[in-house]
Amino acid sequence: MNAIPDRPSARAAPQAAHEARLAYRAGRVAPTAGVAPGLTQANMIALPRDWAYDFLLYAQRNPKPCPVLDVSDAGAYRTVLAPQADLRTDLPLYRVWRDGRLDAEVPDATALWDEHPDLVTFLIGCSFTFEGPLQEAGIEMRHIARGCNVPMYRTGIACRPAGRLKGEMVVSMRPIPAHRVADAVTISARYPSVHGAPVHIGNPAELGIADLARPDFGDAVPIEAGEIPVFWACGVTPQAAVMASGVPFAITHAPGHMFITDVPDSRYHV
Amino acid sequence: MNAIPDRPSARAAPQAAHEARLAYRAGRVAPTAGVAPGLTQANMIALPRDWAYDFLLYAQRNPKPCPVLDVSDAGAYRTVLAPQADLRTDLPLYRVWRDGRLDAEVPDATALWDEHPDLVTFLIGCSFTFEGPLQEAGIEMRHIARGCNVPMYRTGIACRPAGRLKGEMVVSMRPIPAHRVADAVTISARYPSVHGAPVHIGNPAELGIADLARPDFGDAVPIEAGEIPVFWACGVTPQAAVMASGVPFAITHAPGHMFITDVPDSRYHV
Repeated sequence: MNAIPDRPSARAAPQAAHEARLAYRAGRVAPTAGVAPGLTQANMIALPRDWAYDFLLYAQRNPKPCPVLDVSDAGAYRTVLAPQADLRTDLPLYRVWRDGRLDAEVPDATALWDEHPDLVTFLIGCSFTFEGPLQEAGIEMRHIARGCNVPMYRTGIACRPAGRLKGEMVVSMRPIPAHRVADAVTISARYPSVHGAPVHIGNPAELGIADLARPDFGDAVPIEAGEIPVFWACGVTPQAAVMASGVPFAITHAPGHMFITDVPDSRYHV
Repeated sequence: MNAIPDRPSARAAPQAAHEARLAYRAGRVAPTAGVAPGLTQANMIALPRDWAYDFLLYAQRNPKPCPVLDVSDAGAYRTVLAPQADLRTDLPLYRVWRDGRLDAEVPDATALWDEHPDLVTFLIGCSFTFEGPLQEAGIEMRHIARGCNVPMYRTGIACRPAGRLKGEMVVSMRPIPAHRVADAVTISARYPSVHGAPVHIGNPAELGIADLARPDFGDAVPIEAGEIPVFWACGVTPQAAVMASGVPFAITHAPGHMFITDVPDSRYHV
């Protein structure tokens, strides 16, 4: 194989995912935006088996914020999306939820899997998947340019309930130049299983967002003159459901600290 | 409103769905291909609550043959896809399965819902949804032209198991002129939640299909010179899983006798 150092081949990419996961397993804590480009990143939520049906139904009823990419068997910590990975250790940062409240953030969830041996783990599509194609089309991703986390907001949009689960939709926001908004829509729409097209364009007040400078998760980014705030459904939505529904126990990724899979982004292109 | 008799408006269409459902409720039995054009038709399977998680997981793991459009609450026979409909009576023909074997075909399933009061009903996307766009592109649907049911075949392609469920993929087949196969792929690919792009093109033996003239479900159609058999994943796949897994009790639609929703086909276009 010819080495092309500044443009890793598709064949080389899975190695980047594997190495990143090993670094997180060894204790590294950092947001995953821009890591292992070209490989799909996923949101994670693990719930006791008793809650798995309610959650899978919640996801089916709310496919824009909760597109399910894989579900582990109860008690397993493996996924077909990255057969070598260990879901207990290979994310950079986990959140632990008890009775609907954030209890702790930990870099290793092994002890929690021991505490709840029947956990079912859901991996959910992430809008990072279409950021590569957006950038290739010449659309700047402000949070990547600034080296920070994407800004995320809780909204007033109620998800459709399922069993004991309810909650509001969480969205991510990217400022897009007005003349590129249509391109951002059509490009992201080609990836329906990783949130797809935006859910809202241009009017944060209508979503119940009072101040774009104060995101509920992630980091604020500046909106320049001539740019429109564009909102995509976000895989942090399950964490809002955990809070709103008082779920007794859950483990999730920390926002922006995703699970990096071996699957090329192109798999989710339709 | 101006009446345009030979081209019903989008606004008039839901009435056609409602009237068709009332006819089936009153006892009419007939395949639904071509009925209420422009409105989404769905495959149906109802299972006792105890089997609902396994099935929802089976569908998540096999989204090409089992794209879930809606799931009812246990015991309910209503769906958001057609709020006036009664899922117990409004399909033209039902199949009743006991211990994995076909037990009966009935035009009214009310007594069966009484027998199993905790049934969870799954409505699954149907390739009929993209037949309209294919026809509008000038691609003949042979089974519609001949007024018969689409041919469906069991294959040797194993679905990914989930819990107690396993089985092979069922496919539908449409003969397509060789120079239009690429168009058929790109058009159907725009509808990923109703089976999307074909799973196979051109070599039935590779799917384990010995004779295209003898479909396992539906009716055989002739393949003309210069045409290629194109295979799409099919929503009869859950019935194959019922058989292969020895599911104690299930109700499904009879192949080709679908549930007609109020939802325009365009909803599933990405």
